[in-house]
Amino acid sequence: MHITKEAIQIAAEKIAPYIHKTPVLTNSSINEITGINFYFKCEQFQKIGAFKIRGGMNASLNLSSAQLQKGVATHSSGNHAQAMAFAGKTLGTKAYIVMPKTSPQVKVDAVKGYGAAVIMCEPNQQAREETLNDIVAQTGATFVHPYDNDDVITGQATCVKELIEEVPELEIVITPVGGGGLLSGTCLGAHYFKPSLKVYAGEPEGAADAILSLRSGKVEKAPFIKTIADGLMTTLSERTLAIIKEHVTDILLVTEEEIIAAMRLLYERMKIVVEPSAVVPFAAAMKHPEFFKGKNVGIILSGGNVDLTKFGEWFPSTIN
Amino acid sequence: MHITKEAIQIAAEKIAPYIHKTPVLTNSSINEITGINFYFKCEQFQKIGAFKIRGGMNASLNLSSAQLQKGVATHSSGNHAQAMAFAGKTLGTKAYIVMPKTSPQVKVDAVKGYGAAVIMCEPNQQAREETLNDIVAQTGATFVHPYDNDDVITGQATCVKELIEEVPELEIVITPVGGGGLLSGTCLGAHYFKPSLKVYAGEPEGAADAILSLRSGKVEKAPFIKTIADGLMTTLSERTLAIIKEHVTDILLVTEEEIIAAMRLLYERMKIVVEPSAVVPFAAAMKHPEFFKGKNVGIILSGGNVDLTKFGEWFPSTIN
Repeated sequence: MHITKEAIQIAAEKIAPYIHKTPVLTNSSINEITGINFYFKCEQFQKIGAFKIRGGMNASLNLSSAQLQKGVATHSSGNHAQAMAFAGKTLGTKAYIVMPKTSPQVKVDAVKGYGAAVIMCEPNQQAREETLNDIVAQTGATFVHPYDNDDVITGQATCVKELIEEVPELEIVITPVGGGGLLSGTCLGAHYFKPSLKVYAGEPEGAADAILSLRSGKVEKAPFIKTIADGLMTTLSERTLAIIKEHVTDILLVTEEEIIAAMRLLYERMKIVVEPSAVVPFAAAMKHPEFFKGKNVGIILSGGNVDLTKFGEWFPSTIN
Repeated sequence: MHITKEAIQIAAEKIAPYIHKTPVLTNSSINEITGINFYFKCEQFQKIGAFKIRGGMNASLNLSSAQLQKGVATHSSGNHAQAMAFAGKTLGTKAYIVMPKTSPQVKVDAVKGYGAAVIMCEPNQQAREETLNDIVAQTGATFVHPYDNDDVITGQATCVKELIEEVPELEIVITPVGGGGLLSGTCLGAHYFKPSLKVYAGEPEGAADAILSLRSGKVEKAPFIKTIADGLMTTLSERTLAIIKEHVTDILLVTEEEIIAAMRLLYERMKIVVEPSAVVPFAAAMKHPEFFKGKNVGIILSGGNVDLTKFGEWFPSTIN
């Protein structure tokens, strides 16, 4: 394993001036309903509205000043784009963000709002990578992958470290899994800072690649992609799978209806805005009381960057 | 004035074991956008999801044990109903809640969930009062009015007291105004605990009775009632108007569009769920930078009990 305990400790110190120490919330009515003692680590209140700033900032801070002079680059339509744009602005370096043409205007505006250069491309993986390679070739900027990067994983590991420090009695932690950056970081953080802590992940049935990869031992694609959890559509990398395979207890699937019901419960009872990807672990815990009942369970609420115009679909009027 | 400084101090101590000390949140991006230093007192995180528990609990705690044996009663389709139901459950006394037939099922269920007896009536003021009088005659329960009650006003005053203690540098505080319980309590709290603190209120144009009452000096009705801020449709009482007249700096009107825009900003930037009534003061502050720019402005976010099925109306899809 390349990522050490010390690397995570250093990352936590390095990024601390730039990020929020997010609160851990509990809710007695949700605990009563579920019979589980939940501790919600609220990364929707994090800078840029998601945990991604941890990895993005750590990777950027680890660049040399020669590298920083040439800028940072990535391709993303989601929270990693905002993380790298914010890191660029904060460190005074240019950020080049390749985004698919189909990205919602609000997300493009958010990235531009941090002063990043946005380069549009066709909405497919090949176009993303080619456009990115062109940008890197032209500018000399350093590519920071959203999850297939040790410094990014190390940064994401700081989240569970904070949670363990605040809730020493924690027994289980559950994260969402997309590309596996947060999950692999959480696995390492648990391993180093509280080895008895079990790590689970929640994954949408409509993007069920990680569970297949865990079962087969090699990176698999999802049989189909159809989910409102738009942050979880990517596949694992060899790097994240290797860590996850070694440390995760299990990955649990949830349906779209379960994601929406979980989101509704958090909105109604806790009055917090979270994005669909962020509630997947909570949905998984409610679906599987056999693993979690009576336990102290941490949920990493990974982000709150939600498109409000989707609410009408998710919570339709019952009157019409 | 009947309500003393000591009464508010005692109320704060009495209700403390039953309520949350709600957090005060700040948001650098909202401050940047508006040029105002906002301090958001988050009563949407309060027990029952709104400040109303303060007044309801204080009034209930001030009843004699003979009175408590016979129960408490009120008419409300909103947060005061939940407050009295919760107070009843907590103090082991029966709560009788008269609700209009048109109340959303979720609200009826929430009140029943606290073990209260729900009595349905026709959806008009006369039916509410007659039904309530019948209940009181039958049961001997004590009627706790949602705002025309000194103990209720005293309880609501504890909110600004907490805010002043947490943010001593506060210069202005803004509340919503419906029946005036929160506003009159806030006026008294400011008067006693920080006399230099200016108090403003925000009111919807579609329920503009308080501003007329302030101008004329007597309780007026709104010219028309049409607003999504469903907690602010009631008129002042002589009692609340007398306090407000003496202490408020001004009442500012906002449109429905301004309420929705303010709600959108809090959802998107702060990731918190607030109800339309609760954002009216924030909308008023954004509309009137001439009064608030550069100042330390407290906003009492009064509650977060929102009907998620309304989101589609408030934040319509731009694609269709």
